[in-house]
Amino acid sequence: MKRAIGGILLFAIATFAYAAYGQSDPLPSWNDGPHKKAILNFVADVTDESSADFVAPPQRIATFDNDGTLWAEQPIYVEFQFSIDRVKALAPDHPDWKTTEPFKWLLAGDMHAFLAGGESSIVPVVAATHSGMTPEEFRTIARGWLATAKHPTKKRLYTQLVYQPMLELLTYLRANGFKTFIVSGGGVQFMRAFTEQSYGVPPEQVIGTEGKLIFEIRDGKPMMLKLPDVQFVNDKTGKPIGIEHKIGRRPIAAFGNSDGDLQMLQWTCAGSGKRFCLYVHHDDAVREWAYDRHSLIGRLDLGLDEANIKGWTVVSMKDDWKSIFPPE
Amino acid sequence: MKRAIGGILLFAIATFAYAAYGQSDPLPSWNDGPHKKAILNFVADVTDESSADFVAPPQRIATFDNDGTLWAEQPIYVEFQFSIDRVKALAPDHPDWKTTEPFKWLLAGDMHAFLAGGESSIVPVVAATHSGMTPEEFRTIARGWLATAKHPTKKRLYTQLVYQPMLELLTYLRANGFKTFIVSGGGVQFMRAFTEQSYGVPPEQVIGTEGKLIFEIRDGKPMMLKLPDVQFVNDKTGKPIGIEHKIGRRPIAAFGNSDGDLQMLQWTCAGSGKRFCLYVHHDDAVREWAYDRHSLIGRLDLGLDEANIKGWTVVSMKDDWKSIFPPE
Repeated sequence: MKRAIGGILLFAIATFAYAAYGQSDPLPSWNDGPHKKAILNFVADVTDESSADFVAPPQRIATFDNDGTLWAEQPIYVEFQFSIDRVKALAPDHPDWKTTEPFKWLLAGDMHAFLAGGESSIVPVVAATHSGMTPEEFRTIARGWLATAKHPTKKRLYTQLVYQPMLELLTYLRANGFKTFIVSGGGVQFMRAFTEQSYGVPPEQVIGTEGKLIFEIRDGKPMMLKLPDVQFVNDKTGKPIGIEHKIGRRPIAAFGNSDGDLQMLQWTCAGSGKRFCLYVHHDDAVREWAYDRHSLIGRLDLGLDEANIKGWTVVSMKDDWKSIFPPE
Repeated sequence: MKRAIGGILLFAIATFAYAAYGQSDPLPSWNDGPHKKAILNFVADVTDESSADFVAPPQRIATFDNDGTLWAEQPIYVEFQFSIDRVKALAPDHPDWKTTEPFKWLLAGDMHAFLAGGESSIVPVVAATHSGMTPEEFRTIARGWLATAKHPTKKRLYTQLVYQPMLELLTYLRANGFKTFIVSGGGVQFMRAFTEQSYGVPPEQVIGTEGKLIFEIRDGKPMMLKLPDVQFVNDKTGKPIGIEHKIGRRPIAAFGNSDGDLQMLQWTCAGSGKRFCLYVHHDDAVREWAYDRHSLIGRLDLGLDEANIKGWTVVSMKDDWKSIFPPE
């Protein structure tokens, strides 16, 4: 009964929202308030040819972090869960892993020991699971995993744990002549396995951490192989650097959720003319997770201070978002 | 008198071509023949939804080399001439250059000694002229130089020494849903100084050799600086690798003119489905330059053999192109 009343109430709210905005609300999953208004005003200003803030379409570059900004990142990054699952799947071909750190911890389910190793645990696992195949083969493996693996507590596919309000924002910006890029610390080839389908962002607009590649002719056939070494880390200062290398102009809008995005937001909002910087603040312990200054995953500490000083938009998932994930 | 007859003849040919194609000839500077036909047929096939060779628009990726493919590269690469001119311009601030190799050779006009040094001459000159400023400042310097510097024998601005038939090809492909990229061994920031204006290719679709960048906060302001070190060489095997890193899918068409483009063409045409690989052959000693197997700049040797074996399109600048450069 309680559920039925909740359902009716939700319907009444939705109807009210529909009536207030008509069919034209481009951000229906965002609650009215200063943050939604800030987005709408920014887009109105830079697309109005009569405005002093007008920005020509080629310059309308918007960059989005991925983990924690476009999809969930708790309790651990999705790509990291993928790596753990791959170690388990590949273990029969690597009998030595049973006695080799850090693999043996994963295989024995000792996550505490594994995580205590920090980078010295993570690097060999990512190297072992992300190399030795072509980029295309890797993307196929990642796609296969994403098609079936489910989140441990939400019990949904990871691609269903994307943020509905951010999907609307991506669509809204593109409808207004923006070119949307993903700029993430995650592996670029892992993201390309799903970003086009999930976010409408084509592979050439995905910037991420890159592993080394080798090109050679084998039996007369050109081959490209992923090597275990890292070529470029697209995090923190690597984000504006990656943007400069690959886009070659400064974004006018940037969206993130953690200290890893701080330099991208600093770089974006220090440009001349109208700029927009936004942090997604994870403060919804009921519908998602609540974490910021002390989280190991997606820590938002320095960024929160700077956002307050600079007047960047800090979105409350709890208060600003009507829904978090797309309907099941 | 001879010139007048030539003019009348040219006009007659142009009129004939116009009549034969109507206004719709998308490649008016290309002579009729098997090579022009190969381009038109390829585009017709991959854009025809009822064809087995149909390629959906997001997969219509076409990559172009720059030097010698889209603009002239003789007697030396344009960017290299820029570097030499910059050494001369900066010399008053570097009195030590008068006595330091390789700078002293350039300042004394001893190109023979300079070029004999090969890489050990070129690397310090590029480092000295391409670093110590922001990427934006560098592009402004390059733009300033391109606005006034003239080719030593053609006596035209370098941006007027782009190939008219290739400009038409870029436009034609884009009109047919292709996304056109430049994939060059040249410096990415140098190219971005002119590629949008000259070729209609935005900076985010320009892939080139990259210098290292550093990002830091100076006096509270985010700064990006070009360092003298090379981060990625986008030549030979670096071309397909650069494509995989930055585009993330294999092109269906690739255009080059030298052995430096061979791996890009191999990679492109080894993909499944309809593919198109084209070499521009510099065989017009009268209107441009004639060079291939033995040239130090833009050598086409292994590539010419492989093009013949694989049946790639080899365009004769002399026979296939009505005009080389845009009208003055």
